[in-house]
Amino acid sequence: MLLQSLVVLVFWIRIGRHNIVKSRNHWCHGLYQPRAHKNPPAPPGDKDCLSRIRRTDRPRISDIFPALKNLLDLPCETIEQKEVSENIDLAFITLPPTISMQYVPLFLQKGIKVIDFSADYRFRDKSLYERWYKTQHTDSKGIETAVYGLPELFREEIKKTRLVGNPGCYTTATILALAPLLMKGLVFPDDIIVDAKSGVSGRGREPREDTHYCECNENIEAYSVGGHRHSPEIEHILSIRTNQKISIQFVPHLIPMNRGILCTIYAKPKHGKNAGANGQSSFSDNEVHKLYKEFYGTEPFIRLMEGHETAKTKDVIYTNFCDIATKVTENRIIILSVIDNLIKGAAGQAVQNMNIMCGFDEKMGLL
Amino acid sequence: MLLQSLVVLVFWIRIGRHNIVKSRNHWCHGLYQPRAHKNPPAPPGDKDCLSRIRRTDRPRISDIFPALKNLLDLPCETIEQKEVSENIDLAFITLPPTISMQYVPLFLQKGIKVIDFSADYRFRDKSLYERWYKTQHTDSKGIETAVYGLPELFREEIKKTRLVGNPGCYTTATILALAPLLMKGLVFPDDIIVDAKSGVSGRGREPREDTHYCECNENIEAYSVGGHRHSPEIEHILSIRTNQKISIQFVPHLIPMNRGILCTIYAKPKHGKNAGANGQSSFSDNEVHKLYKEFYGTEPFIRLMEGHETAKTKDVIYTNFCDIATKVTENRIIILSVIDNLIKGAAGQAVQNMNIMCGFDEKMGLL
Amino acid sequence: MLLQSLVVLVFWIRIGRHNIVKSRNHWCHGLYQPRAHKNPPAPPGDKDCLSRIRRTDRPRISDIFPALKNLLDLPCETIEQKEVSENIDLAFITLPPTISMQYVPLFLQKGIKVIDFSADYRFRDKSLYERWYKTQHTDSKGIETAVYGLPELFREEIKKTRLVGNPGCYTTATILALAPLLMKGLVFPDDIIVDAKSGVSGRGREPREDTHYCECNENIEAYSVGGHRHSPEIEHILSIRTNQKISIQFVPHLIPMNRGILCTIYAKPKHGKNAGANGQSSFSDNEVHKLYKEFYGTEPFIRLMEGHETAKTKDVIYTNFCDIATKVTENRIIILSVIDNLIKGAAGQAVQNMNIMCGFDEKMGLL
Amino acid sequence: MLLQSLVVLVFWIRIGRHNIVKSRNHWCHGLYQPRAHKNPPAPPGDKDCLSRIRRTDRPRISDIFPALKNLLDLPCETIEQKEVSENIDLAFITLPPTISMQYVPLFLQKGIKVIDFSADYRFRDKSLYERWYKTQHTDSKGIETAVYGLPELFREEIKKTRLVGNPGCYTTATILALAPLLMKGLVFPDDIIVDAKSGVSGRGREPREDTHYCECNENIEAYSVGGHRHSPEIEHILSIRTNQKISIQFVPHLIPMNRGILCTIYAKPKHGKNAGANGQSSFSDNEVHKLYKEFYGTEPFIRLMEGHETAKTKDVIYTNFCDIATKVTENRIIILSVIDNLIKGAAGQAVQNMNIMCGFDEKMGLL
Repeated sequence: MLLQSLVVLVFWIRIGRHNIVKSRNHWCHGLYQPRAHKNPPAPPGDKDCLSRIRRTDRPRISDIFPALKNLLDLPCETIEQKEVSENIDLAFITLPPTISMQYVPLFLQKGIKVIDFSADYRFRDKSLYERWYKTQHTDSKGIETAVYGLPELFREEIKKTRLVGNPGCYTTATILALAPLLMKGLVFPDDIIVDAKSGVSGRGREPREDTHYCECNENIEAYSVGGHRHSPEIEHILSIRTNQKISIQFVPHLIPMNRGILCTIYAKPKHGKNAGANGQSSFSDNEVHKLYKEFYGTEPFIRLMEGHETAKTKDVIYTNFCDIATKVTENRIIILSVIDNLIKGAAGQAVQNMNIMCGFDEKMGLL
Repeated sequence: MLLQSLVVLVFWIRIGRHNIVKSRNHWCHGLYQPRAHKNPPAPPGDKDCLSRIRRTDRPRISDIFPALKNLLDLPCETIEQKEVSENIDLAFITLPPTISMQYVPLFLQKGIKVIDFSADYRFRDKSLYERWYKTQHTDSKGIETAVYGLPELFREEIKKTRLVGNPGCYTTATILALAPLLMKGLVFPDDIIVDAKSGVSGRGREPREDTHYCECNENIEAYSVGGHRHSPEIEHILSIRTNQKISIQFVPHLIPMNRGILCTIYAKPKHGKNAGANGQSSFSDNEVHKLYKEFYGTEPFIRLMEGHETAKTKDVIYTNFCDIATKVTENRIIILSVIDNLIKGAAGQAVQNMNIMCGFDEKMGLL
Repeated sequence: MLLQSLVVLVFWIRIGRHNIVKSRNHWCHGLYQPRAHKNPPAPPGDKDCLSRIRRTDRPRISDIFPALKNLLDLPCETIEQKEVSENIDLAFITLPPTISMQYVPLFLQKGIKVIDFSADYRFRDKSLYERWYKTQHTDSKGIETAVYGLPELFREEIKKTRLVGNPGCYTTATILALAPLLMKGLVFPDDIIVDAKSGVSGRGREPREDTHYCECNENIEAYSVGGHRHSPEIEHILSIRTNQKISIQFVPHLIPMNRGILCTIYAKPKHGKNAGANGQSSFSDNEVHKLYKEFYGTEPFIRLMEGHETAKTKDVIYTNFCDIATKVTENRIIILSVIDNLIKGAAGQAVQNMNIMCGFDEKMGLL
Repeated sequence: MLLQSLVVLVFWIRIGRHNIVKSRNHWCHGLYQPRAHKNPPAPPGDKDCLSRIRRTDRPRISDIFPALKNLLDLPCETIEQKEVSENIDLAFITLPPTISMQYVPLFLQKGIKVIDFSADYRFRDKSLYERWYKTQHTDSKGIETAVYGLPELFREEIKKTRLVGNPGCYTTATILALAPLLMKGLVFPDDIIVDAKSGVSGRGREPREDTHYCECNENIEAYSVGGHRHSPEIEHILSIRTNQKISIQFVPHLIPMNRGILCTIYAKPKHGKNAGANGQSSFSDNEVHKLYKEFYGTEPFIRLMEGHETAKTKDVIYTNFCDIATKVTENRIIILSVIDNLIKGAAGQAVQNMNIMCGFDEKMGLL
């Protein structure tokens, strides 16, 4: 089945700068590139794509992102409920959390598939969402039926759903790194440390004192120590998927680079042939590597590091890959995972989800 | 003669972020470090320094600049005319242009020496200032008596004045590079190209879209092509000093680094023993180098590159040096000059001026 | 007509690190991406591509460039004359200058089209090459018949040739910026200043003191002042194309970023309706912009900046675009041009040339 | 007591590039700046300092480090045993590990105090050194009597010794962060994770593929996972100081910046008023902060972050400060510590040690 007509990207400039950064890459890597595919399928060209943005001055996309000049010059438009055409197959909603859930139902009601970039549809537990986002969730039906858009763990559900909550960047890198060990029950679920490092695009595009060039350049610092919102998302999804209560210690850091996330994860081995009293690992590097290889098998966007290979952000930026390296030490299994926070951590993953939801080749526009 | 009592740094947070960046270095390199000198002289310690800032919440300097924690914890205060104590020797005024001239007279009237960081006292020609800054100059007496604070060219005047207009960063680098050639009349005064490159701190500390980390990093671009305000300042000062009408073509660029300015200057040789019709240079590299050496002689903060040495910003950042390299090509003399825009281009030069105005060792606190 | 069989990329690891950087992007953007095109045309997949490299240990391409893991795992092989199969349509030769001309004839003799990345086939004047590269040119026939691979100026010749000398990065940016003005005879051909700024990948991939991270980061400096090898290439090609002797003053600078080149070019207007004695420009911004628009018309990879738009390297990196902005000042026409030195300045342009030589869509694999 | 005569800096250019980076800052911040102090004390000026370097071509220090032009132009000389003058008070030895121990005894024998930058005198346990550095230690007497040069923990010993092993950069940041908790016995000594991030200068100055600008820029990666040499140094010194066997999990990362180290440390609380079964922390943020405040009291170079303050590398670069922030979470105490790896992590700490060994003001040349 092809996209018969339109894909809508809804984003919000005044409030949602953060989302535009994602959108930018989305357009570049998700919508723009597939145009080269003459047939099939033909996602939106300049003429047939309806981009509607909450702005009164109707700038062109390329006015906002000069890199897209000549590539995406269509003007932004405001969106009103009545305007949501039924002549649309799928919409990417890149509004901020708490705003997104006001718009998503408009699309679903008209039978349009939705991939939402905000946190509004990432939790199956409404109360958990409400505790962390400090607001009432107004779309109970949506949150109950939404599928978490991490294809490597939820592909079958994504195939069948009409609403996907597209995962956050830190969560993608962390969950993909931990899933094999946790699903096999090989590490303690409540003694996991995630030391995460992100490029500055992860902080959003809004000009703020802490994203000023001179504040970020030649500097590294931790932020939100002990209270980052991605922490409950990671625990929630991993708990659902592995049927056990997962508790992680998550500390994000800001790194002087544009793109890329590295998660250094410290997990404690639970048992094994010769598990010592202090939890010494009884696994070898090879055994752990083999486990990951079996788990991810033919996944097109997971690459497992071997031998002396290490996981570097520079090898995955501008791609939809997640590279994972593992190392067994005396009393920990260390997992290193890297992604491009704007591709596999946002727009690329959304395209991957679109491909799955629409029955396209999952790699379309991404490889 | 010593500073008997106080040095006041007046700056303005809400409007004048740009100036605070300068202030920061000023405090670090100008006021703070001399404290190590037990005697003489003892510029302001925490107890005796009166810092007055237009803020109502009285933050400590170190709240604004965490790097100064434990070093400069005194609170900022608001300033009112009646508060300007006569018990002050010298004030650094780092308010924005057009604001500064409203405060400078308050200090001068009480017999306090002033070093002003804005453009308000850099021009001897009031109408020129008014044309570029699009506002009436309200302190005619000040602008007429102020001395341009570039010690290498105006040292004798600085010694005698009570009001110094501290030069801008681009202007310092450009004027120091061109003065020897122009004062000797060796190049055409109206065929000079200054291609300038600056780190991002030159754009000010205010969070803006164009100083966002991701906008500046991995990017280079020109700005204000054909209309930068430093252009008339350079032409004006060089014209005054060399008694001829100087006209330059000035194009600044933004470079992904915190500090440092490089000016690449292309001047056309005017005459010489064998000057060709097309203005081929008749000078050798050695002759030009010798000219600069004679001109700058024992200047403590000018370093002239020799042989294979080249002028790099990294060799002058965090110092008050201006490094200058020259190269004669077929029909141009190329001059490369580098400074730290925040030190020799702002705070360091101000301290150098203070030292001269107060009869201290010119290098005090700077070497 | 399709590529029937093979494309060979010949590169040389031990000597030619510089070329590998280029090759890397070539593979990524030139060979790799087109694989997505099921049909037509099908440039080399892993199985049918013959990569031959002068190494004894036969590493996989992805061992050298980990970013290509799973994408290009085929092993490198040594190359000997007898091995050059006739079953090849086109070879990209990315050996260093003076080495390349020893291999290119081997391919041409077997009827294989060649795109050479070195300087060995960029000059029509053998003696000029020999003067700058300080070695005898051993392939007289090749240098005489080779076409300069800048499609915007030499498209028709490229269509017909079997040997293309792929242009350098600085030269591409400079020639594209100057061609319209020079071909119309609007500026003096002997009073042109090119102040060029390049990211560090332009210096090659070989570990050297001057490409150490800490030497380049937080630094800007000029290099090869008055003697860069791209200078004669620019003058030579522009002279050929515009039938006049062109003389430029070229000064390259190293900028702390990975990719991208910005050339800031200062040209002096020659005549015009009201040309003044001092060469004041009689052109308006609009007239110059219109000239460029007419000149480049429908060129797919030239984008002309309008209104407040400016040319930024970040808008062209990872693309084959050259963005050009123009600005008329009192006595100069300033042209700003930006490219990705590894794409439009190397591998992307080579793919563009391949498309033209093979009769493919010129944008294939590039847009 | 003053330095009567000379301070010798011994370094080794061909082998020991890594040490020169450190030396550079040493000279800048340690030897150079005190010259401003007319009296007392007067460490080496250009005339009286004997710099001896294993090079035959006798370059000037400023040839190697152009930033020191006009500041330190004295030539390097080769060193032979007979040349070691007795007319020296103290020598900084910045040779590589395993080389250093061949030279240190020459100085000690003549009654000269030594501060050694290599690892050769950091271990009290010779066999531990030999295991990690894979060579026999040839100066048994030296290694037995050397004092570990971390003033905050070993000040009294440093006062009395003639041989100091100057600590590594990672170890300084880690030990200072952990000492208060471990010496009070508040956390498990065998469940500590140190996730360390370092600027590229930490990798040495030698040109290598992995320190090429384009390899480091826009990238983050872990290295030496599970096997970094600083790991045993940290465990060894902490074990000695706290009288318990300390075992840490140490993973260093390379960050795209020149200077600065951040250690993010995860320690598990051992007991407390309400310590839970799973080791939940019973401490409040305030209690931990108070503990550190009491422990470090009036230390001049330790700054403890309060309230919303966080530890950023940019606040300590170019200083001798170590900034420490603590945060109590559900089941960990997280400690963040930052230093400049070249100052507090090398040259600055060496000057601090010199000041203590020679009875000077400990802050001399550093504040």
